[in-house]
Amino acid sequence: MPRHVFYVKNSYMPITRKKIGILGGGQLSQMLALQAHRLGVEPHILCPSENDPGAQVTRYWHKGDPNNKEALERIAKHVDVITFESEFIDPELVRTATEGTNIQIHPNLDTIGKIRDRQSQKKILSKKSIPSSNYMKVSDSKTLQMASKELGLPLVLKARLFGYDGYGTHILQNEKDFKKFEKGPLKENKAGFIAETFIPFKRELAFSIARNVSGNAIAFPLVETHQENSRCLWVKGPVEHKSIISMIERSKNLLDSEEYVGIMAFELFETQGGSLLVNELAPRVHNSAHHSQDSMNVCQFETHLRCILDWPLISPKTLAPGFAMHNLLGQSPELQKPIVIDDVHLHWYNKMESRPGRKMGHINLLDQTSDKALEELKSIVKDQH
Amino acid sequence: MPRHVFYVKNSYMPITRKKIGILGGGQLSQMLALQAHRLGVEPHILCPSENDPGAQVTRYWHKGDPNNKEALERIAKHVDVITFESEFIDPELVRTATEGTNIQIHPNLDTIGKIRDRQSQKKILSKKSIPSSNYMKVSDSKTLQMASKELGLPLVLKARLFGYDGYGTHILQNEKDFKKFEKGPLKENKAGFIAETFIPFKRELAFSIARNVSGNAIAFPLVETHQENSRCLWVKGPVEHKSIISMIERSKNLLDSEEYVGIMAFELFETQGGSLLVNELAPRVHNSAHHSQDSMNVCQFETHLRCILDWPLISPKTLAPGFAMHNLLGQSPELQKPIVIDDVHLHWYNKMESRPGRKMGHINLLDQTSDKALEELKSIVKDQH
Repeated sequence: MPRHVFYVKNSYMPITRKKIGILGGGQLSQMLALQAHRLGVEPHILCPSENDPGAQVTRYWHKGDPNNKEALERIAKHVDVITFESEFIDPELVRTATEGTNIQIHPNLDTIGKIRDRQSQKKILSKKSIPSSNYMKVSDSKTLQMASKELGLPLVLKARLFGYDGYGTHILQNEKDFKKFEKGPLKENKAGFIAETFIPFKRELAFSIARNVSGNAIAFPLVETHQENSRCLWVKGPVEHKSIISMIERSKNLLDSEEYVGIMAFELFETQGGSLLVNELAPRVHNSAHHSQDSMNVCQFETHLRCILDWPLISPKTLAPGFAMHNLLGQSPELQKPIVIDDVHLHWYNKMESRPGRKMGHINLLDQTSDKALEELKSIVKDQH
Repeated sequence: MPRHVFYVKNSYMPITRKKIGILGGGQLSQMLALQAHRLGVEPHILCPSENDPGAQVTRYWHKGDPNNKEALERIAKHVDVITFESEFIDPELVRTATEGTNIQIHPNLDTIGKIRDRQSQKKILSKKSIPSSNYMKVSDSKTLQMASKELGLPLVLKARLFGYDGYGTHILQNEKDFKKFEKGPLKENKAGFIAETFIPFKRELAFSIARNVSGNAIAFPLVETHQENSRCLWVKGPVEHKSIISMIERSKNLLDSEEYVGIMAFELFETQGGSLLVNELAPRVHNSAHHSQDSMNVCQFETHLRCILDWPLISPKTLAPGFAMHNLLGQSPELQKPIVIDDVHLHWYNKMESRPGRKMGHINLLDQTSDKALEELKSIVKDQH
């Protein structure tokens, strides 16, 4: 097992420090940067505004859009490794902007390219025999009709690119829904859709798996996630499932085949029959593992950094029998009330604007059971509304 | 018990954020700032270089010396609360620079003034019947002779101002020591000294106590600290002592009388007879409580911030039966070897220069006992030399 080596050079000489570039400046970037500082790694952040959550927490902010070639070239001059807070970047642009440099890019651009497109994401899952719902490509009315016949109703349509938190997802139940979808989204979205069988799930679950440059891997525990309006509201864990070991093994296989470096989140459905299906992959740190900041001996943010720097990975262990995480969402103006925070682990992203449903922060709690922790968090959040 | 209130204002309106100013940019400032970011509090840092540990971790760096009035006036324009990473500031200068503003200053300047001067520090201890070694003021040869007669040999001389990590401390055993001290330090140091009875201690111990604006207080567990060359090398805990409850009660009393807001560290001697004597006070976050970052449900840095913002305090609870902290010190050039870090909690301050004995970082570990945790840390550090 490789060990991380810090060279503390001769006294009075500058110490060589690793510099990582993070593309994007949201809360994921912010929390990555905070861990980077603790580990003695310089976090450089590329994002448009100095008020973005990530930009506030480092001296090494680079103004610019992660989808602008000139901006990418600028940050590339300052860093040893580039990583991402989002899969919604243009892999080709990053490739071009870093051509001829020695910069390492983790996770690799090929895999990000495959995962950001839901169609190729489905392909890499089925290649590794990772169970997922049946799907078909939909690009016009004809393929939509075929999908409807093949997969049945209700039919789930997901935009191939840039879908998140329910955006870009449509559930079609009847003739009217189909008409509306054909006239609107299907025409407008040039990148097209995939159609999926609708899965009436018992629970939504998730886990994250991480692999470093040397190929060592660790997994974070399985958790239950709860979405409202397609947006994560809370997470609790750890959760047991008979198929999780085999699911993690296949996932590890997928990461190996892709030579994937970094952390990857697997969002799952537990079907009515009790089996696990992968709903979505996220090639990055993920809301479902925010609990690890306070529930584990190592968090997902440190783990992702250890992966991309090829440091040894720390096996995640829980610090209490149960844990929970609750998001703090922005509210509508008329419902706006103070948010009161008491004896819990608070993470507040310092966003300049509150919008209804926007992720403004989250709170973590440990307890004797995950249900106890969750109930306590719910009562805290409820007190504030 | 007051609860902290976050006002998430109407959507599309900026959220009111508390802005704290930290005077000084070392590792204590850095670790305060990292916690501030997590809590949604803007850390503004005043220090000379953009490469100082604190300056690296925030967008709100103000260039300047914390002992320069103009620099203090500059940072004062940006913040709601001012706090300190060191007691070696000039309270009068801070008072003048913030006159006529609404800025809150925690801990209060009067108490910092008393604590930074070892003579008045002794006075506030004795006023609250907190046991400490006998002392006398020494300003010239005559008072030195009197102290020697009164307190016996060896005699410990401590500079009244600016002493730390053994700097400014002299132990006099014989005629030669006295001569050397009289010719050198006693002449040069205009602020003078206090002489103390030398305490042949069994162990050195420490604890920290914190009090918020509303007057609520919590204490961190008692720990054993080990100094080498007068510099903290490791800490382990928790430690039991029959007198700790009474010691904490008196300390709480001291904080109440002083209307002290923030965290304060108490460095203690356990005498050969087994009683506790206060060796020194530090009106700030302190090396002896760095373990709390990973051993407790709340760390000293968050606690200090909660105090000065008048948020409710979280009662510190340990996450495992034992914990330890080991400092990572810079080495002499000829002995310089890589520092290897494995499966522990690493905190690396990102200092630009390594100097022999300089505090470069620290590592924390939890285990079934504090001795196990400490042995593991020692073996990790030893591997690197």
